[in-house]
Amino acid sequence: MPSVETIFSPALIQHHLLDDRYAVIIDVLRATTSICYALNEGAKALTPVATPEHCLQYRRQGYLCAAERNGLKLEGFDMGNSPDEFRREKVEGREIAITTTNGTYALLESQQAERIFIGAFVNLDALASFLIRENKDVVLVCAGWKNKVNLEDSLFAGALATCLTNFDCDCDSTLMAKELWLAAESNLSEVIDQSSHAQRFKKLGVDDLPLCLDMNRCPVVPEYIENRIVSLPLQNTGIAE
Amino acid sequence: MPSVETIFSPALIQHHLLDDRYAVIIDVLRATTSICYALNEGAKALTPVATPEHCLQYRRQGYLCAAERNGLKLEGFDMGNSPDEFRREKVEGREIAITTTNGTYALLESQQAERIFIGAFVNLDALASFLIRENKDVVLVCAGWKNKVNLEDSLFAGALATCLTNFDCDCDSTLMAKELWLAAESNLSEVIDQSSHAQRFKKLGVDDLPLCLDMNRCPVVPEYIENRIVSLPLQNTGIAE
Repeated sequence: MPSVETIFSPALIQHHLLDDRYAVIIDVLRATTSICYALNEGAKALTPVATPEHCLQYRRQGYLCAAERNGLKLEGFDMGNSPDEFRREKVEGREIAITTTNGTYALLESQQAERIFIGAFVNLDALASFLIRENKDVVLVCAGWKNKVNLEDSLFAGALATCLTNFDCDCDSTLMAKELWLAAESNLSEVIDQSSHAQRFKKLGVDDLPLCLDMNRCPVVPEYIENRIVSLPLQNTGIAE
Repeated sequence: MPSVETIFSPALIQHHLLDDRYAVIIDVLRATTSICYALNEGAKALTPVATPEHCLQYRRQGYLCAAERNGLKLEGFDMGNSPDEFRREKVEGREIAITTTNGTYALLESQQAERIFIGAFVNLDALASFLIRENKDVVLVCAGWKNKVNLEDSLFAGALATCLTNFDCDCDSTLMAKELWLAAESNLSEVIDQSSHAQRFKKLGVDDLPLCLDMNRCPVVPEYIENRIVSLPLQNTGIAE
């Protein structure tokens, strides 16, 4: 029986074994949600990079450049980190370089994993179907906020683990995530509204929560391969079956 | 209003501010539980040290020496890490040097805090009363298991935060801990029985869960001062009031 482990913060990755496992990177508010939107709206690929400076270097190759820090779009970039900015008219057929406060960091720290996927509430069922079909050990990597644990990523880990019914979910952090999801599932937006991140959004005037909690709006399975995040073809995801 | 933050693993301590705050070290199975037992049974003080070798150096000064690694008492020591070993006939009036897999590590990593206290289910109410009276910002440090998050320490953090009704518990990790406690409170031993640590106990033949979940059996407030853990005099804890 394959297992599901949950890592509540990128600072804990080094204490878990990623080799021979599939990693799912989770940054619900908003990097991994926006990546799902971008691919679902026809973007060709996203290249995650660590710094805004590195991001801008891709512009001369014709990339769109997306950069967010502390919840805000940085000046001089095509977009920040809001799923609302990754619409078809802007992203279809395009390559995008992206850097965010937490999501890209978690991804770049998880490179020991055999394969790396991107998860958010907007692609929950698509990703779960794919992982069930693959039947491999999975590690759920929550991006958190500057290495602190956050509520929304932990809840998504619980939601995904709950979908993986044939997996061994007995590690303590996965038990905790599932229990939290069970308690929050019926009133998810009210629960996430209490989170530090939602409070930060209110202060910044960001109104992306509904887009981020729009369950299964983006039936994609994004995979990070050779420095780019691309959408797996539907026939490989099991979704079309 | 003072605040309560929760740190789910010692590996996350460096990402939280401990200065000017009170830290509570939590290693329910079993270091902080055993420390409460020892002091409640009349031990004079406990000196936590990092290694078994360092621990044994205290013997020539007349200390009892307690050492545990991976759940087992080490050979050549007076006791391991079971609360059952810290009985009055053995510990009364004695100084004890102690080293454990996770608890002493979490404590030694938390030295930036203004004051450091020891928490477990066996001293929940005593500690909560004291903290309420002190009215200072508190950081709850879960010892976990080798830097991984564990269930029982997270649950205790939730129980303690729930007692601190006049504190700001809005940080995500404290919200998570409180939610987990709320879900587990009515059947605590069944929930903790699912934890990795309880499973490890079963394999080792350790039967300490009932002693560790004996709520409020040890009405002490242990504080770590100048390398030793001592019990605060009752008149300073608010318990006698």
